[in-house]
Amino acid sequence: MFPQPIKKFIDLFSTLPSIGPRQATRLAFHLIGLGKGSTAEFAQAIADLQKLKTCPQCFFIHSQISNECHICNNPQRRKDVVMIVEKETDLMSLEKAKHYQGRYFIIGDLKKNSTFDAEQKLRIGHLKNIIEKNLGGQAEEIILAMNPTTYGDLHASLITQELAGVSKKITRLGRGIPTGGEIEFADEETLGGALINRG
Amino acid sequence: MFPQPIKKFIDLFSTLPSIGPRQATRLAFHLIGLGKGSTAEFAQAIADLQKLKTCPQCFFIHSQISNECHICNNPQRRKDVVMIVEKETDLMSLEKAKHYQGRYFIIGDLKKNSTFDAEQKLRIGHLKNIIEKNLGGQAEEIILAMNPTTYGDLHASLITQELAGVSKKITRLGRGIPTGGEIEFADEETLGGALINRG
Repeated sequence: MFPQPIKKFIDLFSTLPSIGPRQATRLAFHLIGLGKGSTAEFAQAIADLQKLKTCPQCFFIHSQISNECHICNNPQRRKDVVMIVEKETDLMSLEKAKHYQGRYFIIGDLKKNSTFDAEQKLRIGHLKNIIEKNLGGQAEEIILAMNPTTYGDLHASLITQELAGVSKKITRLGRGIPTGGEIEFADEETLGGALINRG
Repeated sequence: MFPQPIKKFIDLFSTLPSIGPRQATRLAFHLIGLGKGSTAEFAQAIADLQKLKTCPQCFFIHSQISNECHICNNPQRRKDVVMIVEKETDLMSLEKAKHYQGRYFIIGDLKKNSTFDAEQKLRIGHLKNIIEKNLGGQAEEIILAMNPTTYGDLHASLITQELAGVSKKITRLGRGIPTGGEIEFADEETLGGALINRG
């Protein structure tokens, strides 16, 4: 019943996270209503995502002229401290805090089980190579910025095993009461973390 | 902080209905993760929406070879019965019911006030012209398929005024208890409609 281009659009866009067939239909008619110029702009915006580069050091996505991202490219940032994050958006949130002067390393979305996928195994190997080549085999500190959840804990311990011996210290982000949070409603784990990290 | 192509994508896609900056960010990284081939397919699906034609008779969007849509093009469908609908998706739902053998006319999204926009005024004029030219000045029946809401009622009565004299009958879709609905929970208006339309 739908004209073919609309059908194709709905089929494709309803595969995207949190977009179902109904929303995809609405989007299609909204885009049609915007007219040719606007639609071309949306198509271009998607196509342009492929102009992005992946940093060969840390796997962060960027659009710098250089191959490396602006963080790995910055000589002021410590090479010997590496924070392992799950995804780009985690890296960006941590950067916004303006507290960290080391490098990052993106490991990719962690599965809800106790294994790494093939890509993640390659990345861990790549990180070991970088440490071997650039830091003479040992980093000063590796910070594991996994989420403070059961799976985050599990993956952090798996990564710790993988990286045994390649860093003087392996740490995790501190746990505590979030700013604006209330002690009364904090869970025991959080309060435990807050007590340990008091100061 | 975001690389330019991602920023552009987020700015643009968060203007779409029910997509906010957070979902647009998720979509951007999801699309990047799919890789070049898939992203090109998404860009193409948007671009292809512009290949759609608008039927010069009823304003339905289609991808037929002819200028007219498959409904206006079908000689088996009555020319002298016209159902006015607000939008394409309404037309498609009504067609799925497989009960109607007349033509349609899309008036476009009705505003939440008692006026028509410039485009809608043009379309009403266009409908009158079609009736003048093709039906000798008078249709057999015009069915107003506005939603059974306060604004739907308001717009239906405004359209009725505009079309005074160009149709023998002007009707609206019948109100009643929806299939699967329960009498106990139906509102008074619905039950009133159901009593009038009993049979």
